[in-house]
Amino acid sequence: MPVPNARATAAGVRCGGHCVPTLPTGFQDVHVMIFVGFGFLMTFLQRYGYGAVGFNFLLAAFGIQWALLMQGWLHSCRQGYILLGVENLINADFCVGSVCVAFGAVLGKVSPVQLLVMTLFQVTLFAVNEFILLSLLAVKDAGGSMTIHTFGAYFGLTVTWVLQRPSLHQSQARQSAVYHSDLFAMIGTLFLWMYWPSFNSAVSDHGDAQHRAAINTYCSLAACVLTTVALSSALHKKGKLDMVHIQNATLAGGVAVGTAAEMMLMPYGALVVGFVCGVISTLGFVYLTPLLESRLRIQDTCGIHNLHGMPGVIGAVVGAVTAACASSAVYGEEGLAHAFDLDRAKVNWSASLQGKFQAAGLFVSLAMALVGGIVVGLILKLPVWGQAADENCFEDAIYWEGRPHPAPSTLDGG
Amino acid sequence: MPVPNARATAAGVRCGGHCVPTLPTGFQDVHVMIFVGFGFLMTFLQRYGYGAVGFNFLLAAFGIQWALLMQGWLHSCRQGYILLGVENLINADFCVGSVCVAFGAVLGKVSPVQLLVMTLFQVTLFAVNEFILLSLLAVKDAGGSMTIHTFGAYFGLTVTWVLQRPSLHQSQARQSAVYHSDLFAMIGTLFLWMYWPSFNSAVSDHGDAQHRAAINTYCSLAACVLTTVALSSALHKKGKLDMVHIQNATLAGGVAVGTAAEMMLMPYGALVVGFVCGVISTLGFVYLTPLLESRLRIQDTCGIHNLHGMPGVIGAVVGAVTAACASSAVYGEEGLAHAFDLDRAKVNWSASLQGKFQAAGLFVSLAMALVGGIVVGLILKLPVWGQAADENCFEDAIYWEGRPHPAPSTLDGG
Amino acid sequence: MPVPNARATAAGVRCGGHCVPTLPTGFQDVHVMIFVGFGFLMTFLQRYGYGAVGFNFLLAAFGIQWALLMQGWLHSCRQGYILLGVENLINADFCVGSVCVAFGAVLGKVSPVQLLVMTLFQVTLFAVNEFILLSLLAVKDAGGSMTIHTFGAYFGLTVTWVLQRPSLHQSQARQSAVYHSDLFAMIGTLFLWMYWPSFNSAVSDHGDAQHRAAINTYCSLAACVLTTVALSSALHKKGKLDMVHIQNATLAGGVAVGTAAEMMLMPYGALVVGFVCGVISTLGFVYLTPLLESRLRIQDTCGIHNLHGMPGVIGAVVGAVTAACASSAVYGEEGLAHAFDLDRAKVNWSASLQGKFQAAGLFVSLAMALVGGIVVGLILKLPVWGQAADENCFEDAIYWEGRPHPAPSTLDGG
Repeated sequence: MPVPNARATAAGVRCGGHCVPTLPTGFQDVHVMIFVGFGFLMTFLQRYGYGAVGFNFLLAAFGIQWALLMQGWLHSCRQGYILLGVENLINADFCVGSVCVAFGAVLGKVSPVQLLVMTLFQVTLFAVNEFILLSLLAVKDAGGSMTIHTFGAYFGLTVTWVLQRPSLHQSQARQSAVYHSDLFAMIGTLFLWMYWPSFNSAVSDHGDAQHRAAINTYCSLAACVLTTVALSSALHKKGKLDMVHIQNATLAGGVAVGTAAEMMLMPYGALVVGFVCGVISTLGFVYLTPLLESRLRIQDTCGIHNLHGMPGVIGAVVGAVTAACASSAVYGEEGLAHAFDLDRAKVNWSASLQGKFQAAGLFVSLAMALVGGIVVGLILKLPVWGQAADENCFEDAIYWEGRPHPAPSTLDGG
Repeated sequence: MPVPNARATAAGVRCGGHCVPTLPTGFQDVHVMIFVGFGFLMTFLQRYGYGAVGFNFLLAAFGIQWALLMQGWLHSCRQGYILLGVENLINADFCVGSVCVAFGAVLGKVSPVQLLVMTLFQVTLFAVNEFILLSLLAVKDAGGSMTIHTFGAYFGLTVTWVLQRPSLHQSQARQSAVYHSDLFAMIGTLFLWMYWPSFNSAVSDHGDAQHRAAINTYCSLAACVLTTVALSSALHKKGKLDMVHIQNATLAGGVAVGTAAEMMLMPYGALVVGFVCGVISTLGFVYLTPLLESRLRIQDTCGIHNLHGMPGVIGAVVGAVTAACASSAVYGEEGLAHAFDLDRAKVNWSASLQGKFQAAGLFVSLAMALVGGIVVGLILKLPVWGQAADENCFEDAIYWEGRPHPAPSTLDGG
Repeated sequence: MPVPNARATAAGVRCGGHCVPTLPTGFQDVHVMIFVGFGFLMTFLQRYGYGAVGFNFLLAAFGIQWALLMQGWLHSCRQGYILLGVENLINADFCVGSVCVAFGAVLGKVSPVQLLVMTLFQVTLFAVNEFILLSLLAVKDAGGSMTIHTFGAYFGLTVTWVLQRPSLHQSQARQSAVYHSDLFAMIGTLFLWMYWPSFNSAVSDHGDAQHRAAINTYCSLAACVLTTVALSSALHKKGKLDMVHIQNATLAGGVAVGTAAEMMLMPYGALVVGFVCGVISTLGFVYLTPLLESRLRIQDTCGIHNLHGMPGVIGAVVGAVTAACASSAVYGEEGLAHAFDLDRAKVNWSASLQGKFQAAGLFVSLAMALVGGIVVGLILKLPVWGQAADENCFEDAIYWEGRPHPAPSTLDGG
């Protein structure tokens, strides 16, 4: 194993001769999203809080190490050494983000060993997919609509489809929230929601692109909250809100501007994207998830198809369209070159060509997710990984030293 | 609606020709305070956690969009376009902060529709009040003692006074905390407390003023914790501490240096302000809040009068006095010009005049809050907004899909 | 008391003539670790959540004020004024960190007054110890393996040894977690874990050293999680995981690179250190803590010996070895001078000498902790501080206004 070299660290961020900047602000924000954001988002299950936050901790800590190596070999290997800087740490967190997404589909139904195996393969596939998109196709995907969300979601959905459990209804009593578990989940939701502007702008070029990414994401997310709440209430027969929608669909706006955030989407465009995604994501939770489960036997615990799958595809399309509409009239001559790296020896570049490559990136990501998901799913199906029985899903006591629960409780509606 | 223009984003923060800075550090901190800070601070009610964190999420997400437009029209409109940068996002968060404050007064007693209507009007009034103070009176108010806290608190108190519920005692059993709900509330308290130095310094000029603001706020808050704890224990007949005081009065020190933090208040002055506010705020919770409810029928759910009202007024007065004492002997010639924007064509400026304008700003804020609060309260009183009955206040099951609660519990003292 | 002077604030961070930087990114991260990190980490006890988060809040708020004065007198006093900048705030947080560590040993067994007295003395001792190490011995200790963790842990262990309670078993029923209290504790664990790269790099020189510190810490912590989980499962007779290990031993990797993080430890070295510390810390929880309690009567509530004690000593040794191996072949001529402050009039400096001084620093810290701990323990033993009886330990109702708990619960294993 090549020894990574920390000396090259600060090189990329020195500016001028005077300013030696501190750590990039986005780094710790992204880190919080991966560990607290995804970890607590999944604590909504009444008896799987340890598994949600603990296994997420485990797979993310494993994944970032493997991602540093995989991404290092593919992107920053010089003379047998992997050059390592803080931006590499951010990219490792991004890579693990896609594993956290996939974890949402299989939450409560797989053993920790299965999770580690899945992480090992998914990180590898992620790195290859990312290499194809960013290096070969020269696709722009700063917030990872394609590389993180689309890939992660459809990979996870395919895995859970392969691992389908015919008698999962035996664990149905535990596949729901109690009052406090929903509040814990809101910690995850809010940290994801709040730090998403940092997420989508963390690896953008400093300056214009980064500020655009933060502003567009902020606007899209804000709009998404409103339509989610409105639709959640409208679709309930008594007009009540459902915590599941508030926890998840409010985030779809961040997913869907992942590709276009650093481009000239403009706040107005971002608001429209957020508006649309709140609608689609909430509709997905109400109508599509039950359908996927009953017809296609895709048991999607957290509803990642609604939060990452569809919004990810939308984000890829929005990104392709926005890129295809790019012109020096909007970006300025220098801005256009900067936004699409035209100075790095790209000949015959045109906006519509960029748009086509963006679209190609979406299909590559989907193909990698489906094929990879089937293969990895079959590997995970081998009866050697300590899986729990169907009647023991969504239960911490299988894998964790027991702790007293509050006494059996009564359901109260209104 | 003019299309906001994201291109102007980075202009304000470019420095020199070399350094292209990352996003300002304070932006995400303020964002966390609004959504996690205020959201969880209000989860202390035993059966209104969803409403606290969920409705706060809703109104803040709505409010920031409306605030971007309102503040954009008033402050950064050029040729029909609103110029948008990250500082505008911070200011939108600030504006929404005042709505979150007012939400504390009506918590548990209003419907989500009423909250949206209140947000719509309050953001509008905030933007006008802010325009009068900052642009017309040239008042300094970096941390918003006047614009955010005083205005928000007295606006909310007026609204709740207009909306008074004579039979609210029927919901009294739910108007208290249980063990876990107080721990959730501490998440909110701590994130507000910790990030307050970022809050008070987020829009200060980079450099001296910003660093002063952070240091003064840090000192004031630290002192405030000590007096709150001491007084909470001293006022209890058995010397015990009350979580209500720890959750709220510890924050009063941050409110009360909101105006003066970026001035030469000096750490010593900040400690004194924090000390005094801890005393006043805790006394307010013990003696004043019950009195306001029984005599004036002001049903202030979260005690915002003690946390934002009185400390906000104190902060305005401290700011006026500190400004009136400013001199080039203390700030340096250049520092004084920088601190009070003397280079922007101010003639006949004197420190005492600045002090008088600061005081005027306080009265304008109070007047806007009271008049606006009465009008908005009357609008909210119209029987069309889906209000809950008096016996259904502080209850999530009215507006949220039900979840099981822990079984009925027993009170244990010591 | 000299009035601290906020004017000097920005001096240290101005760069060039153009860039006036914003607040350092690490400041608020460290602040979060002290108040949310340590506060919630200790909420694992089923009936001591208020005490954990509330008393930690109290002692930290008191401690940072006293630390600003103590460290100010020793390090930044000029002409009777203490010069105060944001870096001083970070250092005050660091100092209080060592008190939070020691709090973990006595958690649930001391009164708030005892805690304040302990804080008063420990901050004083910390400042003196830090002055000896950093100023007299010229030791490098950016992340405080010695000054914060080793000193804090052995000080706390000595205090709890002096204060040993022979009948503590009467409170044993409360000295454990329930389901939700472990989830609250995970909030603390994760915020400590995530922000540790900021902690270890917060006061490093900007540029290379700071980036190295962040990268090394990130790697060490990631490795530590894996070995902790693996060993926790391996040591359980049914292969289950124990939340106590996940909450604590996963952090040992951050402690153990505290000294060496900013040096050329290299990611590979950091991974090894994290690996080893995960093993030692988990083994400590399983075998050593019960032994310390039964044989030496050291009642270590949070197991700080495993999380801060042993990893702190390891960190000091790793730091000494890494320093002793420093050469200009690895750091570069300029880098070496920068890393060990050779430009500040050090004559006859050699790497092995630096290593010896580092080792000396460890022994000074241990001696200060043991002697100081005995003296402070004896002071705290005086029967005037309102201590709770042995049967009332780990119980919030002694010091806090009561709140309803969830109804008595039943233990459920698997």
